[in-house]
Amino acid sequence: MGGTDGARETGGAAERPGLSRRGLLGLVGTGVGAGVLGLGVGIGADRAVVAHTAGGSGAAATYPFFGPHQSGVTTAAQDRLHFAAFDVSDGTTRAELVELLKDWSYAASRLTAGLDVSPTGATGGSLAAPPDDTGEALGLPAAGLTVTIGFGPTLFSTATGVDRFGLASRRPAALIDLPHFSGDQLIEAASSGDLCVQACSDDPQVAVHAIRNLSRIAFGRASLRWSQLGFGRTSSTTRGQTTPRNLFGFKDGTANVKAEDTGAVADGVWATEGDGAAWMAGGSYLVARKIRMTIETWDRASLAEQQTVVGRDKGEGAPLSGGSEFTAPDFAAAASTGGPAIAPDSHVALAHPQNNDGATLLRRGYNFVDGNDELGRLDAGLFFICFNRDSRRQFVPIQQSLARSDRMNEYVKHVGSAIFAVPPGASENGWVGETLFA
Amino acid sequence: MGGTDGARETGGAAERPGLSRRGLLGLVGTGVGAGVLGLGVGIGADRAVVAHTAGGSGAAATYPFFGPHQSGVTTAAQDRLHFAAFDVSDGTTRAELVELLKDWSYAASRLTAGLDVSPTGATGGSLAAPPDDTGEALGLPAAGLTVTIGFGPTLFSTATGVDRFGLASRRPAALIDLPHFSGDQLIEAASSGDLCVQACSDDPQVAVHAIRNLSRIAFGRASLRWSQLGFGRTSSTTRGQTTPRNLFGFKDGTANVKAEDTGAVADGVWATEGDGAAWMAGGSYLVARKIRMTIETWDRASLAEQQTVVGRDKGEGAPLSGGSEFTAPDFAAAASTGGPAIAPDSHVALAHPQNNDGATLLRRGYNFVDGNDELGRLDAGLFFICFNRDSRRQFVPIQQSLARSDRMNEYVKHVGSAIFAVPPGASENGWVGETLFA
Repeated sequence: MGGTDGARETGGAAERPGLSRRGLLGLVGTGVGAGVLGLGVGIGADRAVVAHTAGGSGAAATYPFFGPHQSGVTTAAQDRLHFAAFDVSDGTTRAELVELLKDWSYAASRLTAGLDVSPTGATGGSLAAPPDDTGEALGLPAAGLTVTIGFGPTLFSTATGVDRFGLASRRPAALIDLPHFSGDQLIEAASSGDLCVQACSDDPQVAVHAIRNLSRIAFGRASLRWSQLGFGRTSSTTRGQTTPRNLFGFKDGTANVKAEDTGAVADGVWATEGDGAAWMAGGSYLVARKIRMTIETWDRASLAEQQTVVGRDKGEGAPLSGGSEFTAPDFAAAASTGGPAIAPDSHVALAHPQNNDGATLLRRGYNFVDGNDELGRLDAGLFFICFNRDSRRQFVPIQQSLARSDRMNEYVKHVGSAIFAVPPGASENGWVGETLFA
Repeated sequence: MGGTDGARETGGAAERPGLSRRGLLGLVGTGVGAGVLGLGVGIGADRAVVAHTAGGSGAAATYPFFGPHQSGVTTAAQDRLHFAAFDVSDGTTRAELVELLKDWSYAASRLTAGLDVSPTGATGGSLAAPPDDTGEALGLPAAGLTVTIGFGPTLFSTATGVDRFGLASRRPAALIDLPHFSGDQLIEAASSGDLCVQACSDDPQVAVHAIRNLSRIAFGRASLRWSQLGFGRTSSTTRGQTTPRNLFGFKDGTANVKAEDTGAVADGVWATEGDGAAWMAGGSYLVARKIRMTIETWDRASLAEQQTVVGRDKGEGAPLSGGSEFTAPDFAAAASTGGPAIAPDSHVALAHPQNNDGATLLRRGYNFVDGNDELGRLDAGLFFICFNRDSRRQFVPIQQSLARSDRMNEYVKHVGSAIFAVPPGASENGWVGETLFA
């Protein structure tokens, strides 16, 4: 085969180590050693010319992996999600953790370009070895894939009496342990994590392929703690997107921070050097909350009750104070029947920046259905994801207010919770986390 | 509002009964009583002119609900699945079961046309009542939705000593209780069911919306027994579709029966009057098998092993006897190293019609990921669905052969199993099951 760095290329197979689990690690490690820094030019080059699709649509979006910010934050929210939290395996050293982050970055830079995880990929390697890539994305375009990597508080923790990776002094003050919120019914197995990977794509098979292959690459160094598929985005993050609906049937994210709101993004999303942890400049903090909706109860509520709970009308999504979807809510407006048009304990009132000292969140959640429970109720809800610059001023006070008073609480149950520091994007041919471990 | 039967119409709200759970039932019942037969013309009319989408794409497919066959069998396989099995609630009478089937048919005929479940829909009813439709599909086109309804063996059963719905004598001989297959590790809670609804769409939110609303409509008469989301189709059912890949990374369904194979469809998919149960003429038998793949083990197998197991090459999907994807496998061909090119115990050899007395299956399965297990392994695999005319001559012997000898068994575990009689399509303005209960 020729000299292009394509997924189908078989050149280089002779350098591959053997078949073992360590072999896969070794291979990826080799790809990184001679690779992430060395092959980076190749990555950049093949992005333009080669993809693992046989018939990719010209309209299929691709987003950069390298850059000042990680993609998947202000990126126009894709339709599908596979989110995974990982725990670093016992005995893994700091050097091995760094190697993992380099491997993930290398693989992610290829995946987001529509390539297999390595040049030999799913089919181009030795017949005697396991393929580097699992192959289910062969023939599929990048489909707007973004891979966003974050670090959980436990990565920096000294709770066990040891500074696991020598990172304790580098923990950002903003990377708090989330407080207990009133009503939380958290499942440990759906909460926390040392690392996270958020894979978003317009094709669920592409998102699943990314998480599966990054999990595989992590073998022996980190393992899946929990993971979540989301089938429908619940927020718009750019002005060009229509506002989608959550499983309450309401438009969600109308007042979301949008990528075009450059002031709000600068103020409320991206951490700066002055925020206290210089390595996080250009990064953000991701909060994930698995919110189960008791949709059977909701479905029996009257339309009036539903609209009062939300503070908006169901069809248009306009605030109950009047206007259309994007009209600002008027919390002082009176209803024709007397009393406020928008209930002070409605979701929109409690969550609105105006009632939270101006605090905003860039929301990027997804609807989920995880089958049904033994009573025949759909196990469904909202996998809430938000990005903010400092959860102490943004997510936490907003969620405290909601947890205390939100009329919606009758219909939701928070069962999963996690926070991650999402570092800035990797420098060209670099790796996510390079500023932390430098 | 005007006289069109649109989802946003508020006319008719005055006739609505109250708020209670029974009210929803009553409403839908009313819609049917004065409805499925009476409003049928309305259904036909509004399909052409009104949809619940605010901005539906002209390219969005819609498939007919009424007709000689149910849609969702030979229909070009859509990308996403929500499959649900229901049990009829204790104490439900035959008349109530019939009413449920009429309600489901009425709602499904609207949903597949891109409409809400009733004329008042999600937002057009009384503020004092729960909306008829849950609303999360507002603004979305039909997205190729099909709703396919089936009847499980237990609906006809006299195992409890009573003929539950007076149907025992109408049970088709082909609606067998599936035998135990070697290696089965079935989970009762993911198997069987009195009724099934297969909702397929190119938009998962549309498929979920259909199952959720049909579950809601069934309240008090039938409840969800189990349900399954599938994110990626694993078979093509028409020649125009490219062959997708399963989570083993291989093309799946290359040799599937296609809608255009009119002879094979007539021979192997649709039941006829002469088959023994006249009410099933134009229907088919659906077998669902939840097959968990042990993908971590698979991912450690060499490319050669993977290809030997499947009997095809991973990249192109060509049989190991040579050629390209659609070349017929030559089971007599020898490998250059001696021995058969295609192992006799490969999946393709054991499943091929040539080695099963010509028996074929119309496969229509989906990839699934249900999160991960406590060991950090993705809970992933194939939700296998097939349609056949008589499982005694088709699915059962093929699966017995696979269960006994398939090299792939090392990498899969069958955890769910169900069979359903899928009756013919409803006559115009009729209901699915009308031939059974006539």
